[in-house]
Amino acid sequence: MVSPCSPHIVIIGAGFGGLQTAVSLGGTSAQVTLIDRYNYHTFIPLLYQVATATLEPEWIAVPIQSHLRRWTNVHFLQGIVEQIDYGEQRIITDQTTLKYDYLVLSTGSQTHFRGVPGAQKYAFPLRTLTDAIALKHHLLQCIEEASQTPDPDLRRSLLTFTLVGGGATGVEMAGALVELCRRAWPKDYPFLRQQPVRLLIVQSGAELLPEFRQPLRTYTYKRLMNLGVEVQVNTKVTAVYPTHLVLDTGVHIPCTTTIWTTGVTVMLPQGQTLPQTAQGKIWVLPSLQLQQYPEVYAIGDIVQLPNQSVTGLAPVAVQQGTHAACNLRRQLKGYTPQPFRYFHKGRLAMIGCFLGVGQIGPLLIRGLMGWLLCLVVHWIYVPGYRSRLIILLTWLQSFMTGNKLAQQQLMKVRSPSTSTIQSPS
Amino acid sequence: MVSPCSPHIVIIGAGFGGLQTAVSLGGTSAQVTLIDRYNYHTFIPLLYQVATATLEPEWIAVPIQSHLRRWTNVHFLQGIVEQIDYGEQRIITDQTTLKYDYLVLSTGSQTHFRGVPGAQKYAFPLRTLTDAIALKHHLLQCIEEASQTPDPDLRRSLLTFTLVGGGATGVEMAGALVELCRRAWPKDYPFLRQQPVRLLIVQSGAELLPEFRQPLRTYTYKRLMNLGVEVQVNTKVTAVYPTHLVLDTGVHIPCTTTIWTTGVTVMLPQGQTLPQTAQGKIWVLPSLQLQQYPEVYAIGDIVQLPNQSVTGLAPVAVQQGTHAACNLRRQLKGYTPQPFRYFHKGRLAMIGCFLGVGQIGPLLIRGLMGWLLCLVVHWIYVPGYRSRLIILLTWLQSFMTGNKLAQQQLMKVRSPSTSTIQSPS
Repeated sequence: MVSPCSPHIVIIGAGFGGLQTAVSLGGTSAQVTLIDRYNYHTFIPLLYQVATATLEPEWIAVPIQSHLRRWTNVHFLQGIVEQIDYGEQRIITDQTTLKYDYLVLSTGSQTHFRGVPGAQKYAFPLRTLTDAIALKHHLLQCIEEASQTPDPDLRRSLLTFTLVGGGATGVEMAGALVELCRRAWPKDYPFLRQQPVRLLIVQSGAELLPEFRQPLRTYTYKRLMNLGVEVQVNTKVTAVYPTHLVLDTGVHIPCTTTIWTTGVTVMLPQGQTLPQTAQGKIWVLPSLQLQQYPEVYAIGDIVQLPNQSVTGLAPVAVQQGTHAACNLRRQLKGYTPQPFRYFHKGRLAMIGCFLGVGQIGPLLIRGLMGWLLCLVVHWIYVPGYRSRLIILLTWLQSFMTGNKLAQQQLMKVRSPSTSTIQSPS
Repeated sequence: MVSPCSPHIVIIGAGFGGLQTAVSLGGTSAQVTLIDRYNYHTFIPLLYQVATATLEPEWIAVPIQSHLRRWTNVHFLQGIVEQIDYGEQRIITDQTTLKYDYLVLSTGSQTHFRGVPGAQKYAFPLRTLTDAIALKHHLLQCIEEASQTPDPDLRRSLLTFTLVGGGATGVEMAGALVELCRRAWPKDYPFLRQQPVRLLIVQSGAELLPEFRQPLRTYTYKRLMNLGVEVQVNTKVTAVYPTHLVLDTGVHIPCTTTIWTTGVTVMLPQGQTLPQTAQGKIWVLPSLQLQQYPEVYAIGDIVQLPNQSVTGLAPVAVQQGTHAACNLRRQLKGYTPQPFRYFHKGRLAMIGCFLGVGQIGPLLIRGLMGWLLCLVVHWIYVPGYRSRLIILLTWLQSFMTGNKLAQQQLMKVRSPSTSTIQSPS
């Protein structure tokens, strides 16, 4: 597929950064190969809506092959990269071996449970579409079992949902769970009108949404309290069990659903040792190149830039993807790569129940305006006009009726051996 | 949940028959409990379109709980029925034990591989949504591996698709595979323009679509041949292996995808022995009641009526569901149940590529008219206006562009241990 005369650029990982790099290199003279283990790109900002049965998983999953079809110089390869030899410029996947002239590492990160006993086994992460689908199945299973069990203790445990981490994901998931438990489920499970659900955010830091400015943090905290969400700050989870969890205050909370939204660790294939931070991020030059291997770029979650602390957000990865592609085009023409500068557009977070917060430059937005802005911005960035149309119609119907429209437990059969407590698959 | 004064009717199985019975009993004085192991009802006639990535699985999966919400006397219970005591009028599920006054058995059937070695392990059935999703993943995996492998023999095997059974499902699936392999995939996998795909129908009988009249059978055979589908009649598959299958003629066919569309067996929970036919179907009275237990009705695939041979089709199950509900209402009022008579509306089958066949009374329809009629009739019967809207838009886009829009392999991670050949999960 690769013509011998044109340089071969390999991109590993089709997240926001990798896909953007591939798209930005479309139409150039280079042969580009994008590798990912999944055959789709996930629009991660709306994962929590898949987990709470608002959206169907396919609508935020973009088939990569079709997405890249219009550029004949960009190819997609489904596979798992097992090893990279930076010296020999060679990649070994589970299917084949590839040589590259230039390489873009955009392998991303995964949930890190920080060694908390039981967390890996019993807590639900929320970083991939598979995570979101597994969590949705578990939530539907909990409510169904709560409606059937005659045991009040078990029912209370099945109706307690704990969110570990008070960042944007934790807050958004909490709000979405409020909508699910107060508005949607009581229509199908009338017993919920008598039996309240318990929602809990456990935050190790002193405040929710630490990356937002003070007034918005206070606003979010108050609104969540009004919605009935318990918030425990300066608290850590020390152990997770199938039917309860333990806090560092010594308190035991009966709870069958622990959602883990904090802590990430870098994912990198095997290969020569690269200079990494204590958190495992790769030190790169301001141009996003590796010092030892100037033909290798790294972007997204896995990167540590000198004198810039950019967080693991989608806009950062997208801007770095565009920049890496730009620098690669410069390199191909014999020019020097330029340093990357992040343009900070602002931050938004959904609280749910028609509330949201946002900060754009000096401007602080809260309430219905924040909620609307958050929806509109996410909606604009969803890839594909077809998904956008379906999501818009679904949101309209969902907000008007309060119904959750994606409650099917596909791929999940209740087998006779199913115990009350489901561990994440 | 069941008030002690009103009679309790339990329906087992939420297929076409069971769901129709529950809906027809909505608003009556009886307490109705519908049990199914899945929390959704599947619109089986469009399963082949899920398997070939035209439709997303959620659109033909109706959440039962929400579907029944408007009737306060009808409850849904997710669970697996393990045993029925017809004498004591008691049902044991994996979660609980229920007493009933009246019972409707609509447990349906499952694929029967007729003891062909390897079929259970390596052939793909197509009777549930889980089957359809697993088959879709396998097909996408085959084309991806075929695009990567340097071995021409393996590539040929990966690009050979065999359909066992020449009934409506086999024919519809063959046509949908032609569309996928000739129209949709070559856009993403240009090598397919040089390397043709092999499609094969193996039919044990003398003709395709034996339930249709002669001119339509001949028409279907000719059209499929024109589309490049090989049809082997009077032939049986005697063994299925991961990379090939064996016919009773002794021929070995290299083939990694064997789709099993023939042979069904009745599914019944444990309990007292009921009078059954050699095929396992339950003998019922003309009123659909069991002779020994007049409070028990049986409907759908599992039923054998005296002097009536009705096949395992959705319209039969729906009409029997309505009739069972009607007879139950009569019984509750002290009237005698009436005998069931099937009203035969006609039969339709899609060949694909804008071709279809149909017979309505003496009228025979073929070609574009048959295709359109088949689409329209299926579309009308899809439950839920929202699914209907989305399916209509998807079909329009799919027919105009030839694209398959549901190619995401959700829930399927390529792990390093994945071998070339996937066994159905």
